[in-house]
Amino acid sequence: MTTQIDAGLVDEANQQGAAHLQADYDHLGAVLARRGIDIEAITEKARDFAVAVPSWGTGSGGTRFARFPGPGEPRNVFEKLEDCAVIQQLVRCTPTVSPHFPWDWVDDFSELRQHADALGLGFDAVNSNTFQDQPGQPLSYKYGSLSHTDPAVRAQAVAHNLECIEWGQVLGSSALTVWVGDGSNFPGQSHFQYQLERYLESARAIYDALPADWDMFLEHKMFEPAFYSTVIQDWGSSVLCAMELGDRARCLVDLGHHAPNVNIEMIVSRLIQFHKLAGFHFNDSKYGDDDLDSGSLHPYQQFLIFNELVDAEQRGQAGFNPAYMLDQSHNVTDPIESLMNSAEEVQRSYVKALLVDREALYAHQEANDAMLATNTLKAAFNLDVSPILAQARVLEGGAAQPIAVYRASGYRCAVDKQRPSSGQSGSGIV
Amino acid sequence: MTTQIDAGLVDEANQQGAAHLQADYDHLGAVLARRGIDIEAITEKARDFAVAVPSWGTGSGGTRFARFPGPGEPRNVFEKLEDCAVIQQLVRCTPTVSPHFPWDWVDDFSELRQHADALGLGFDAVNSNTFQDQPGQPLSYKYGSLSHTDPAVRAQAVAHNLECIEWGQVLGSSALTVWVGDGSNFPGQSHFQYQLERYLESARAIYDALPADWDMFLEHKMFEPAFYSTVIQDWGSSVLCAMELGDRARCLVDLGHHAPNVNIEMIVSRLIQFHKLAGFHFNDSKYGDDDLDSGSLHPYQQFLIFNELVDAEQRGQAGFNPAYMLDQSHNVTDPIESLMNSAEEVQRSYVKALLVDREALYAHQEANDAMLATNTLKAAFNLDVSPILAQARVLEGGAAQPIAVYRASGYRCAVDKQRPSSGQSGSGIV
Amino acid sequence: MTTQIDAGLVDEANQQGAAHLQADYDHLGAVLARRGIDIEAITEKARDFAVAVPSWGTGSGGTRFARFPGPGEPRNVFEKLEDCAVIQQLVRCTPTVSPHFPWDWVDDFSELRQHADALGLGFDAVNSNTFQDQPGQPLSYKYGSLSHTDPAVRAQAVAHNLECIEWGQVLGSSALTVWVGDGSNFPGQSHFQYQLERYLESARAIYDALPADWDMFLEHKMFEPAFYSTVIQDWGSSVLCAMELGDRARCLVDLGHHAPNVNIEMIVSRLIQFHKLAGFHFNDSKYGDDDLDSGSLHPYQQFLIFNELVDAEQRGQAGFNPAYMLDQSHNVTDPIESLMNSAEEVQRSYVKALLVDREALYAHQEANDAMLATNTLKAAFNLDVSPILAQARVLEGGAAQPIAVYRASGYRCAVDKQRPSSGQSGSGIV
Amino acid sequence: MTTQIDAGLVDEANQQGAAHLQADYDHLGAVLARRGIDIEAITEKARDFAVAVPSWGTGSGGTRFARFPGPGEPRNVFEKLEDCAVIQQLVRCTPTVSPHFPWDWVDDFSELRQHADALGLGFDAVNSNTFQDQPGQPLSYKYGSLSHTDPAVRAQAVAHNLECIEWGQVLGSSALTVWVGDGSNFPGQSHFQYQLERYLESARAIYDALPADWDMFLEHKMFEPAFYSTVIQDWGSSVLCAMELGDRARCLVDLGHHAPNVNIEMIVSRLIQFHKLAGFHFNDSKYGDDDLDSGSLHPYQQFLIFNELVDAEQRGQAGFNPAYMLDQSHNVTDPIESLMNSAEEVQRSYVKALLVDREALYAHQEANDAMLATNTLKAAFNLDVSPILAQARVLEGGAAQPIAVYRASGYRCAVDKQRPSSGQSGSGIV
Repeated sequence: MTTQIDAGLVDEANQQGAAHLQADYDHLGAVLARRGIDIEAITEKARDFAVAVPSWGTGSGGTRFARFPGPGEPRNVFEKLEDCAVIQQLVRCTPTVSPHFPWDWVDDFSELRQHADALGLGFDAVNSNTFQDQPGQPLSYKYGSLSHTDPAVRAQAVAHNLECIEWGQVLGSSALTVWVGDGSNFPGQSHFQYQLERYLESARAIYDALPADWDMFLEHKMFEPAFYSTVIQDWGSSVLCAMELGDRARCLVDLGHHAPNVNIEMIVSRLIQFHKLAGFHFNDSKYGDDDLDSGSLHPYQQFLIFNELVDAEQRGQAGFNPAYMLDQSHNVTDPIESLMNSAEEVQRSYVKALLVDREALYAHQEANDAMLATNTLKAAFNLDVSPILAQARVLEGGAAQPIAVYRASGYRCAVDKQRPSSGQSGSGIV
Repeated sequence: MTTQIDAGLVDEANQQGAAHLQADYDHLGAVLARRGIDIEAITEKARDFAVAVPSWGTGSGGTRFARFPGPGEPRNVFEKLEDCAVIQQLVRCTPTVSPHFPWDWVDDFSELRQHADALGLGFDAVNSNTFQDQPGQPLSYKYGSLSHTDPAVRAQAVAHNLECIEWGQVLGSSALTVWVGDGSNFPGQSHFQYQLERYLESARAIYDALPADWDMFLEHKMFEPAFYSTVIQDWGSSVLCAMELGDRARCLVDLGHHAPNVNIEMIVSRLIQFHKLAGFHFNDSKYGDDDLDSGSLHPYQQFLIFNELVDAEQRGQAGFNPAYMLDQSHNVTDPIESLMNSAEEVQRSYVKALLVDREALYAHQEANDAMLATNTLKAAFNLDVSPILAQARVLEGGAAQPIAVYRASGYRCAVDKQRPSSGQSGSGIV
Repeated sequence: MTTQIDAGLVDEANQQGAAHLQADYDHLGAVLARRGIDIEAITEKARDFAVAVPSWGTGSGGTRFARFPGPGEPRNVFEKLEDCAVIQQLVRCTPTVSPHFPWDWVDDFSELRQHADALGLGFDAVNSNTFQDQPGQPLSYKYGSLSHTDPAVRAQAVAHNLECIEWGQVLGSSALTVWVGDGSNFPGQSHFQYQLERYLESARAIYDALPADWDMFLEHKMFEPAFYSTVIQDWGSSVLCAMELGDRARCLVDLGHHAPNVNIEMIVSRLIQFHKLAGFHFNDSKYGDDDLDSGSLHPYQQFLIFNELVDAEQRGQAGFNPAYMLDQSHNVTDPIESLMNSAEEVQRSYVKALLVDREALYAHQEANDAMLATNTLKAAFNLDVSPILAQARVLEGGAAQPIAVYRASGYRCAVDKQRPSSGQSGSGIV
Repeated sequence: MTTQIDAGLVDEANQQGAAHLQADYDHLGAVLARRGIDIEAITEKARDFAVAVPSWGTGSGGTRFARFPGPGEPRNVFEKLEDCAVIQQLVRCTPTVSPHFPWDWVDDFSELRQHADALGLGFDAVNSNTFQDQPGQPLSYKYGSLSHTDPAVRAQAVAHNLECIEWGQVLGSSALTVWVGDGSNFPGQSHFQYQLERYLESARAIYDALPADWDMFLEHKMFEPAFYSTVIQDWGSSVLCAMELGDRARCLVDLGHHAPNVNIEMIVSRLIQFHKLAGFHFNDSKYGDDDLDSGSLHPYQQFLIFNELVDAEQRGQAGFNPAYMLDQSHNVTDPIESLMNSAEEVQRSYVKALLVDREALYAHQEANDAMLATNTLKAAFNLDVSPILAQARVLEGGAAQPIAVYRASGYRCAVDKQRPSSGQSGSGIV
C-alpha cells in the first residue's frame, strides 16, 4: 500500500472546481491585462516558485510547558519524507526537504536519498544542532557550543557541523545552515567579545571545510534559548561575521528572530545590497519566535519582503539567489495542513509582488509621491491572486484546493494506524 | 544523615566576617541616622520580610529546545522540600514553599505537611496545572482548559482546581493561584468573548468552592504557550474577571508577563488602588517570560515596585496584603543558589524602599519638583544596604554570605550521590 | 467661486471607468453568490458606512523636530471644513467632522454650524485640549491638567471641557472625547494613585455636566507626551475609570496608543464584552503613536478589528454603537488625499469583515479547527472588494477613483492661491 | 555682574558637608581596601572623567504636542555657554560643549571660541542639522537630505556639513556628528537600496572633506521623525556605512535609538570589537527616543555599558577612544539641574565599572559560573560610590552637592531677569 494521496481524488476535486476557477482566472487575466500584465507569464513564475519544507515541521511542535502530539506523527525521517511527499503532491511548490541533524540521522544516507528520489523529493540546506545534548554525547552544550569557553566543546560542535556537511553531500544538498543558541542568561556570564571571537574561530573551521559548491548560512536570533544575550543576536553581528568568513558565508533571515517593531523588509534590502542575503526561514510571529504559520498574522509584511526580493531579481542584483524555507512550529494544527497552507501563502506573496508596477513605483519614489508610491504596492496586494495559485497547482498536477483534498483522502487517519506512537516527536522538540 | 547544612559551618563563616559586617553596619547606621532613620528598625523589618519559594524552582528549568539538568536534582516533593530547607536555613526569609499540582502530588498530604514541619517550612499558595496533559488524563488541554469549548474539558479542569484546594487545605495553605495558558495561535481560532465567558463560568465554579479563609489569585500573561491570544492576557482582563468573581479574587503580577516597555510599577499601583493586588511572582526578564533571577537585570525597576508596596503599606491602604513568591527558571545556575540570591535581591529592594524619605517625596510631588522627587528615590536606591541584609540573616540564624557557605558545605555534591537521576525534572518542565 | 470639485469632473471620470467597474463588480458578485452572499446587500452596507474626519487632519502634521507644511493649508476651521467637504464629496463615507478646541474655536458657533450645513457636513465628537498652553491662559499644563496637583489648574481644565460641551451642543455634537497627556517623566515625579484619584475627581465633574444625550469618551495612551508614566496609560485604567464614572463613560481606542505586540483586536473584544467600547481613532503605526495612514502598514490587523465589530453587530451585542474617526498625522502627503484614502481603507476592512462566513467560523471555533477557522477569515480578507467600494461611492454621488479626480481638479493649487500662509498649522501641532 | 555661581557659596556648602563626606569616603576606602582597591586611584580616575554637554540641552525640550518653556532660557549660544559654565563649575566633569548648527551659528566663531575660553569651556563634536528647514533655505528637507532623490538637495545638505566642519575647526572641535532623519512614512515611498546608496555618496563627499585630524560620527536611530523606515536605522546599517567610508568614520550610540528589548551593551561590545565605536549620546528611555535623564530609569543598564567600556580600556583594545556626550530633552526640569545630575549619573556608572574585579570576572566567565560572574558585577554596582564622586568634585573645585548649591545661588532667577523671553527655544525644538 502507499500512504500518498490517490491521484484520482485530486483530479476529481480539480474537475469539480474547474469551471469556477477558469472563470475567476479569466476575469483576473482581464484585470491584469488592463494593467499591461500577462497572466500567463505570472502563472509561469508561480509554477517555478519553490520553498523548502523542514523535515521537523511534519511533527507537532510545542513550548517549554507542553507538547500536545497529534495522531500519526512521523517517527523517523522516512516517515517525515512521506508526509513531505503528500505536501508536494498537492501544492507542487515544495520539491525539497531541509533535514536536521542528528534528528534525521540514518545509518545509510544513500538509502535515504533513494527514498526521497522515489518520492520525487530533493534535499535543501542541512541544519546542524548544537543546542541540545544528545544521548551519549561526551560534552554538554549547556554553556554553549561553537563559542564555548572550553576548546573541547567547540571542537565537538565543529566536528558535528563537518559531519552534517558530509551527510548533506550524500543527500545532494549544497548548503549548511548554522544556528547556535549560544549566549548568556546573566549580565557578566559571558564576555561578549571573547565569545564572538571563539564563535568566529569555530565558524572559520567549518567554513574552511565547505565543499567548493557549498554555502554556509548564518542564522541570527535575538533571544531564546538564551535570555540575556545571544552570540549572533541580530543581522548586524551576522553580516559582520559573514564578511569575516568569506563570500560563501551569508545571512539567513528567520522572520521571528528580530526585536519588536523592527523593519524586517529593510534588513532584507540591506543584506541584498551588501551581497549577503542567504535566504529565509519563513514563519509569522506576534511576540517572539512564535513560529506561527507564514503570513497568518502579517500578510502585508510578507508581501513587502517579497517586494524587495522581486525588485532585486528584476534589477538583476549581482549574486542574488536566496534560499526559501518554511520554519514553523505546528502546535494546534495538522502539520501537513499548515505546511501546505503556508507554502501557498509564501507563494501568494511572491505572486503579488510580481504584479507591482515597478516603473510607476520608481517614478513615484523619484518624485517623492508617497501616496501614489504606497498605493502602487497596495494595487498589487489588494488583488486576489488565488486563481493564479490554483491554476499553477493544477497545471503542475497538484490540487486546486489542497486542504480539502487532503482531508478527503483520509491520509492522517491512515498513517495514524501505521505509526503507533513512539512517544517521541518528529519535531525534535522536547 | 541529614542533607542540611552543618550549623557550625554557618557560625564559623559568620564569625569570620563579623568584624567587617559590624563596621559596615555601624557606618550605614550613622549615614541613616543623619537622615533620621533608625537602622535597627529597618533591620527589624528586614527580619520580618518573607518571600515564598516555588517547589518547582529547585529543579533546572529549560526551553522548548532543551533542558540541561544539573547534578542532584530533587526527584520528588520531599527532596524539593529538603532543598527549600537549605535555602531557608541560610537566607531566613523564605519560610514557605508554594506547591504545584500534580507535580507535587502525594498519596498522603498529612505526611508531606509533617515533613515540611520537621524542616521548619510552611506552605504558601497552591498552584494548579491545566496547561499540560498528564499520563492517563481522560481529556486533553491541547485546545484549552477552563475556557475550552467542550464542557467536559472545562469540568475536568475545574475538578482539578477543586482538588488542589483540598490538598492545599491539608497543607495549611490558604490561596489558590490559577494560571491558564488557554488562548489561540491563529486569528479566528477562538472567539474572544465566548472564550472569556467560558473562563468566567469555570472560574466562578472554583471561586464558589473556596473555603471561607481562602483567596483566589488570577495570573495574567501576555503570551506563551499561546502565541496569538491568551484568555487572561493582561491586567485589564484580570482585574475585570476578579471584579466579576468577588472580593476574594485578586490579581497576581508576574513581572515577566507584560508587553514590552510597559510600566509595571504603575500596574501595581492601579491594582493596589482598586483593592485587587493579590501578590507577585518575582523574576526578571529582557525579552519575554524569560524567568531570569529577580533583580538580575532591572534592579531599579524592582525597587520602584517595592516603592509602591511600601508606600501602600505605610499609607495603611485598605485590604493591602500581597503575597510574595519567586518564580524563576534556573537554566544555567544551581537552583538553590539562584533562589537564595533572588530572595536576597527581593529583600534588598524592600529594604531600600523602606529608606525612601516619604514626607520629602510627597512634598516634591505636590510641588511638581521632578528633580528632587526622583532624587529622593535615588537617595534610597543608591545606598548599599547589604550590611542590613547580612545582619538580619545573622540575627535570624542564617548566613551572612549564603552562597559561600552553601558552596563550602558540599550540599550539592552530597545530594547528587543520594539522588540518582530519574531522567525527570523537578521543575515539571518538559 | 467655490473651492469644491466640479461635479462634471467626477461624473466624467466615473463614466470613463464605468465599464470596467461594472465588469469587476459583476464578477465579484458571482464569486460572492457562490458563497451565498448577495453583493447588493453588501454594497448597501458599504453605502451606509461612515467615519468622521478630524478637523486638524486637514493640516500637515509634524514631529518635535520639524513640521514641513504643504501648499494651501487651511488657516481656520472654516477652511478646514471646506477641505472636509472635498473629502466627503469624493468618498461619500465621511459626512461628519470632529472639532478640536481651542484650535477650532470661533466667536459664533451657530455660524460655524451653518457653514458646515451648507457644505453638507455635520459634527462628530468634540475634543478638548489640555495638553498645550494657549496664549493668555492663566495657569500652565506643564505638570498636568485634569490630574494636576493644584486644584486651580484642575478647575481650569474642567472648565475648558465644560466649554467644549457647550460649543459642541451648538454644533449638534453629542460626545466629548477626553484625552490628557498628564503623566510624568521621572520615577517619583507623580504619585500614581493620588494622580489618578485627582483625574477621577475632575472627570467626575465633567461627566456630571454632560447633557442627557451626551457620552464621554476616555482615550488611553501608553506614552507621549509623558515618557515615564501616563495617567490613563492603557485600556485597563481606562475601563476602570469609565466604570467609576457611569454608563455614559466609555473607552476610545486609538490604534497607535498601545504597547508593542499587544493584541488590539482582543482589547476591542473585551471592551465590547464589558459594554465599554466608545469607538476608534483610526490610524496605523509601526513604532509608537506614529499616526500613519489607516491600514497603510497592517491591513490585516485592521480587518481583524472590524471582524470583532461586525461580529458584535451581527450578534446584536447590547449597547454596541461605536464611533469611528480617523486620527492621523499627515507629514509627507497631501492631507486631503490621505484622509480620502484612509476613509476608503477603513471602509474596506469593514466590507471584508462583512464577507466572513460567521456560521462556518463559529463551527470551526467550536470544533477547535484552527486551520479552517483562520482560513475562513482569510477567505474574506483575500477578496478584492475594491469594486464594491467604488460602486458604493458612485451610487452615493462620489468618485470611483477619488485621488485621481482630486488631482485632476486642481483643488490644492487653487486653495494655495487663496490661502496665503499664516505661518500657523491647521493641525494645531507646534 | 556675572551669572556664574559665587565661589564662596560653593566653598561654604562644601565645608558644611566636609566631615560627613570624609567619614563616608574613609569608610568606603576601607571597604574597597578589603577588595584590594585603592580608593585614591579610583578618585583620580573620577577626576579625569569628562562628558560633553550639548548646547541645546540648556533650553527646555518638548514634544510635537507642546513645549513648556522654563524661566530664563538662554536665547543664543553665548547664553547657552554661560549655563554650561555653571554646570562645569559645579560638577567639574563637563569641560566641553557640543554645538549644533545652524542653531548655534554666529557671525564670528573666533569670538565664540574666546567667549568659551573665558568661561573655561572647550568644544566637542559639532552637530549638523538637515532635519529641519531654516528660514530662507532654498530647498526643503521634507523628503530627505543626504539621501534625497534630488541631487540639488543632497548637495545643499553636504554643503551644510562642510560648513559645520569649517566652523568647528575655528572652535577647536575635531569631530562631526551626522544624524539624518531621512526615511519614509509609507511602504514604497522610498527605495531602500537606492536611498542608502545616495546617502553613502553624500557621506563620502563629507568624509573626503574631513580635516586630517577629524573624525566623522554616524548616528543611527530606529525611527522618528520617519515612522516607517529610516536610512540609518540601526547599528548594522551604521557599521556597514562606516566601513564603506573609512577608518575615521565610526558609529555613535544614542541609548534611546534602538528597538525595544535590544541588548545595547552588546552592541557597544560589537562596535568596540570591530573598531567602530565613536562614542555616546547618553540619555535614558522607556518607550522610544524619550531623551530622559541619563540613568534615571535604567541605572544598571548604564553600568553594564560602562562595564564594556572599562573592560575595553583595561584590555587596551586597539583604537578605543570613545566620545561621551549627554543628549537629553528636559521637558519638566531645570535643564541645568538635569545636566548636572546626569553628568554625575554617567560618572557614577563609570566609577562603579572601575570597581569590578575583572580577574575574578574573567575566571568565572571561563568557568561558566554564571552566578558568581553576575554577582561580581553586582558587587561593584551595589556599592554607593557617592563619596568618591563628591570627593572628586570637591578636589576639582566643584560642589559636593551641585543641585543644592545651584538652588541656593539664585542663578535661574537672576538669568530670568536678564533674558526676557524671545519666544524661541534654546533647544532648537519647534
